[in-house]
Amino acid sequence: MAKVLILMGSDSDYDIMKKAVKVFKEMDISFEIDICSAHRTPDRAKKYAEEAEEKGIEVIIAAAGMAAHLAGFIAAHTVIPVIGVPVASGALNGFDALLSTVQMPPGIPVATVGINGAENAAYLACEILSLKYPEIRERVKLKRKEMYDKVLEKSEKIRKDLTNI
Amino acid sequence: MAKVLILMGSDSDYDIMKKAVKVFKEMDISFEIDICSAHRTPDRAKKYAEEAEEKGIEVIIAAAGMAAHLAGFIAAHTVIPVIGVPVASGALNGFDALLSTVQMPPGIPVATVGINGAENAAYLACEILSLKYPEIRERVKLKRKEMYDKVLEKSEKIRKDLTNI
Amino acid sequence: MAKVLILMGSDSDYDIMKKAVKVFKEMDISFEIDICSAHRTPDRAKKYAEEAEEKGIEVIIAAAGMAAHLAGFIAAHTVIPVIGVPVASGALNGFDALLSTVQMPPGIPVATVGINGAENAAYLACEILSLKYPEIRERVKLKRKEMYDKVLEKSEKIRKDLTNI
Amino acid sequence: MAKVLILMGSDSDYDIMKKAVKVFKEMDISFEIDICSAHRTPDRAKKYAEEAEEKGIEVIIAAAGMAAHLAGFIAAHTVIPVIGVPVASGALNGFDALLSTVQMPPGIPVATVGINGAENAAYLACEILSLKYPEIRERVKLKRKEMYDKVLEKSEKIRKDLTNI
Amino acid sequence: MAKVLILMGSDSDYDIMKKAVKVFKEMDISFEIDICSAHRTPDRAKKYAEEAEEKGIEVIIAAAGMAAHLAGFIAAHTVIPVIGVPVASGALNGFDALLSTVQMPPGIPVATVGINGAENAAYLACEILSLKYPEIRERVKLKRKEMYDKVLEKSEKIRKDLTNI
Amino acid sequence: MAKVLILMGSDSDYDIMKKAVKVFKEMDISFEIDICSAHRTPDRAKKYAEEAEEKGIEVIIAAAGMAAHLAGFIAAHTVIPVIGVPVASGALNGFDALLSTVQMPPGIPVATVGINGAENAAYLACEILSLKYPEIRERVKLKRKEMYDKVLEKSEKIRKDLTNI
Amino acid sequence: MAKVLILMGSDSDYDIMKKAVKVFKEMDISFEIDICSAHRTPDRAKKYAEEAEEKGIEVIIAAAGMAAHLAGFIAAHTVIPVIGVPVASGALNGFDALLSTVQMPPGIPVATVGINGAENAAYLACEILSLKYPEIRERVKLKRKEMYDKVLEKSEKIRKDLTNI
Amino acid sequence: MAKVLILMGSDSDYDIMKKAVKVFKEMDISFEIDICSAHRTPDRAKKYAEEAEEKGIEVIIAAAGMAAHLAGFIAAHTVIPVIGVPVASGALNGFDALLSTVQMPPGIPVATVGINGAENAAYLACEILSLKYPEIRERVKLKRKEMYDKVLEKSEKIRKDLTNI
Repeated sequence: MAKVLILMGSDSDYDIMKKAVKVFKEMDISFEIDICSAHRTPDRAKKYAEEAEEKGIEVIIAAAGMAAHLAGFIAAHTVIPVIGVPVASGALNGFDALLSTVQMPPGIPVATVGINGAENAAYLACEILSLKYPEIRERVKLKRKEMYDKVLEKSEKIRKDLTNI
Repeated sequence: MAKVLILMGSDSDYDIMKKAVKVFKEMDISFEIDICSAHRTPDRAKKYAEEAEEKGIEVIIAAAGMAAHLAGFIAAHTVIPVIGVPVASGALNGFDALLSTVQMPPGIPVATVGINGAENAAYLACEILSLKYPEIRERVKLKRKEMYDKVLEKSEKIRKDLTNI
Repeated sequence: MAKVLILMGSDSDYDIMKKAVKVFKEMDISFEIDICSAHRTPDRAKKYAEEAEEKGIEVIIAAAGMAAHLAGFIAAHTVIPVIGVPVASGALNGFDALLSTVQMPPGIPVATVGINGAENAAYLACEILSLKYPEIRERVKLKRKEMYDKVLEKSEKIRKDLTNI
Repeated sequence: MAKVLILMGSDSDYDIMKKAVKVFKEMDISFEIDICSAHRTPDRAKKYAEEAEEKGIEVIIAAAGMAAHLAGFIAAHTVIPVIGVPVASGALNGFDALLSTVQMPPGIPVATVGINGAENAAYLACEILSLKYPEIRERVKLKRKEMYDKVLEKSEKIRKDLTNI
Repeated sequence: MAKVLILMGSDSDYDIMKKAVKVFKEMDISFEIDICSAHRTPDRAKKYAEEAEEKGIEVIIAAAGMAAHLAGFIAAHTVIPVIGVPVASGALNGFDALLSTVQMPPGIPVATVGINGAENAAYLACEILSLKYPEIRERVKLKRKEMYDKVLEKSEKIRKDLTNI
Repeated sequence: MAKVLILMGSDSDYDIMKKAVKVFKEMDISFEIDICSAHRTPDRAKKYAEEAEEKGIEVIIAAAGMAAHLAGFIAAHTVIPVIGVPVASGALNGFDALLSTVQMPPGIPVATVGINGAENAAYLACEILSLKYPEIRERVKLKRKEMYDKVLEKSEKIRKDLTNI
Repeated sequence: MAKVLILMGSDSDYDIMKKAVKVFKEMDISFEIDICSAHRTPDRAKKYAEEAEEKGIEVIIAAAGMAAHLAGFIAAHTVIPVIGVPVASGALNGFDALLSTVQMPPGIPVATVGINGAENAAYLACEILSLKYPEIRERVKLKRKEMYDKVLEKSEKIRKDLTNI
Repeated sequence: MAKVLILMGSDSDYDIMKKAVKVFKEMDISFEIDICSAHRTPDRAKKYAEEAEEKGIEVIIAAAGMAAHLAGFIAAHTVIPVIGVPVASGALNGFDALLSTVQMPPGIPVATVGINGAENAAYLACEILSLKYPEIRERVKLKRKEMYDKVLEKSEKIRKDLTNI
């Protein structure tokens, strides 16, 4: 049974959202993923949102580009936390998607991450799930430690490279 | 029976949309108007969109501010032409609403007018209705003539005022 | 006899506008297409706009980049609905064209679609023509159904791909 | 014992954040609130973030204007979910705060709501808490119902007002 | 006989353009001024542009707001230098007018000044006229000297005020 | 003796400004061209500006990118008309250069053309020179005619291509 | 003898720059202040910049609005550190001034603070002076302590106010 | 002992910051460089900032992209002058980093240079160090002379190239 539902407005968002998938696999979080457009398949989007609670979904991630309505659409049909990922596509490169996702009217929030922020959407989902599943919190802490160590490694590398400039 | 359906995402859009109402009254076009949020009352928005064709609605105008999804939401549920009016509200003053309304994905168009462009939304609706109702085209032409004459009047006034500078 | 007139401000807009042409061919809508600059050939643009009604044109699509005046210019010379397509070109990548097309003054509307939104311009034209030609509405509905099914297909593909991440 | 911690970068953010306070009071959610600048009192901000988990805080809301670093700063020091509220202040009216809050680097997410979106920050906190406290989910659903009914009321009012235009 | 023609897209531009009128009166340059919309009265705008050369007009100033096409429209119908003044009006406060005026396609230039830059439009016109009328160049130099002296005066004032801080 | 002086803030602007050079060669207008930075060689920029009038220069074109001060700098030191060309370079792609060039304070105008608008800068210079040299006006008119004809040619081509879509 | 020179492009910048004056008075740093436009009085601006080193000036603050060239102009004429304050004025509210001040070409830096950031310009000047005058560093530390305490005070106030919401 | 500390939020900033390293090597200024994220390694960032004064660091350069908090974070923990370099990365290409770096609240300044302005950050550091080390000022002056001469060289080249256009 999936804890997280990932929806994408278009298959072109999939390359970006793979990073979220990778995080969930690493963190051993069950998830379901699908393409589901708020504009081309609104009934499916509605169905996904309305059945989510019953199916045991605890966080939803919705990714879309341009006039990115998907996250807001889902949020309008459920009270499960919805994380919005504005995707860079088209002439405005995600700036339109950012405003369309984050500037929600009072009452229906979307937890928005940065443009193409699939990875952060996944980490945010993990942090939210941690309220109920303390073991996930421990995994997030381990992940943070790993990130910390990676910075140290890179720090080493750059010190060595300096003589070449 | 209404030819035009005007929907607003919030009652705060009403002051702007009154200008559209005024145009339809002047042009003697029957219309229906309601507040109907894509986020707070999605089922009503869906119902309005889905029943529009059957009820004889021929053009829909949807006005909303911020992450303005209403026009796109309606367009996703009907093939009647949808005109979107981005409304200036909140910190970004309608710039977010413009992008959220106009940058629709391929397949589901929204005919977008300028920020707070209620009047133009109404005139555009009249121009669209003119395809079927030639008498409306004549009224639009008369209106254009009136606008033309108003410019001439103002031209007169300014020439007179010049001596005061 | 053409129902739709497509005008482009420059031949560099043609690659974008081919998508509109393709839609009209698929939907079996007669159209006329030409390059016609509001700045370099204003008399031809005016002639196109003024003769459109008489020639039986029912919707006009005007595409231009940068200080994109073509759609507004055409709208100033006819009461036929004008759809504006802001084209991404130059350093600002269509953002200038979007504002130049959509922010029309009261009285002379342009039905603006997204940047490079040639496909949506064509679908919007079809939706407008549907007021008078019910058979076009049926074709639009079929097209929507196709889009719906394409999303389902892509949904299948992605589920299969998941094991590879 | 507080479930939610609200931090503001400046006392000028308080007028905005009162709306979040009001929501928590209505929803009967315990909270703690303080002013705590990432720039002027970084040690206090760090202390708040690091002690939050131990104190039983389950969601943190951080509000700031201009180069709004507070939410990101807090998120860097805890794995509890952090909601960022960009506040409109200064010459750019919150646009700078939005980008400073939402565009976080991979690994350290901030759940960003719209500019001045205090109310939505509170509702999002409630939705997140609902994972663990099912009774809060019920209150959120009731609240949604109230919002729905308020739209209906306003709908009534506008229909009555129409004759006055 | 007027050397300069000032056209405004709307009477709401007049308050801004009065500053240009004042400069021309001070510099003793003959001018003609009118309201003339590229969208509402395109034939009059065309007539003004086409007759300008014959009437002895040597510079044209065109001011407009929003999708400000007037300057570009005039430039398309004459080879007399056209100065464009983007006027701040509507929700985007002249930013749209700036891009609509300055981003002209190759071949048809508009000499654009800053938003609401009526005064600079007038000084630019004087500088252009100076090519043919050396006495105007002398007046511009005197004006520059006056501006210089005004800065000195203000410099004095501020030094005196300093003790009050 | 050169009638036009072209200054560039950096040699990286030269590729853009070649288009202006080409226009002046075609139009048989004498010009002088140099690299001259307002920031790295302010004394040379000042000298160019101050000696221009005496040397018989009648129009100056100044091109620069980023915080593009060159045109404004030159305009501050002469009363000869200065045309500014904002050049697209760096992360903001000329948007910074546009604002830095066009938003001049009252009294010191810069006649700004679009981003990378070298060609239009040259045509504008020709139009300005036409006040004094009527033969240049005739050449500009011929050029306009050529542009007109080129549009017609392209129009032909596209009609032929249509069958391939 | 003044350590800091404050220059403003216009007297309208004075209200903003008073905050810098106040800081210098509090910190007991000697300063000189004047209005001096890069565009209207370039020779004076040049003189200020060129004589600064000899006069013992150690930091220069330059404030200007719109196409804010003053800081860059000064930096081009001296190697003393120049702090730029973009001032909010005109239709773009300081956004143009920010880009015009900060986006300097390689070689001639301007230390830019936020829009209307007069106070921060003064504190930055103090931090720079601290390299040479250790006693100023101590004053800056005290000031930071004061800011810290002010946050605590405000924190108290807000806790008391909470019961009123 | 290093006079300058260069910190980067990510190793992807290193390519940009190499230009600063090159300047310091040329100018013979001792420096220390490291990767140190305000978000992934806040304790190390804090340590660097707090120990800087004691270690004899006199200027700090902090470079980061997106929601670029590093410079502000460092500035909050020291009174040594902090120079911020907004780095172009992600969908907004450094525009977000610019606002996140420069729009600091009153009291905690960051001396911001242009997007990717590593070279200018280094020159600014040299100018600041010059207050205490007069020999550095002489090197800066020499460097300026070199830049001047390079412009002259390029000027020569372009004059030669002209015949090829």
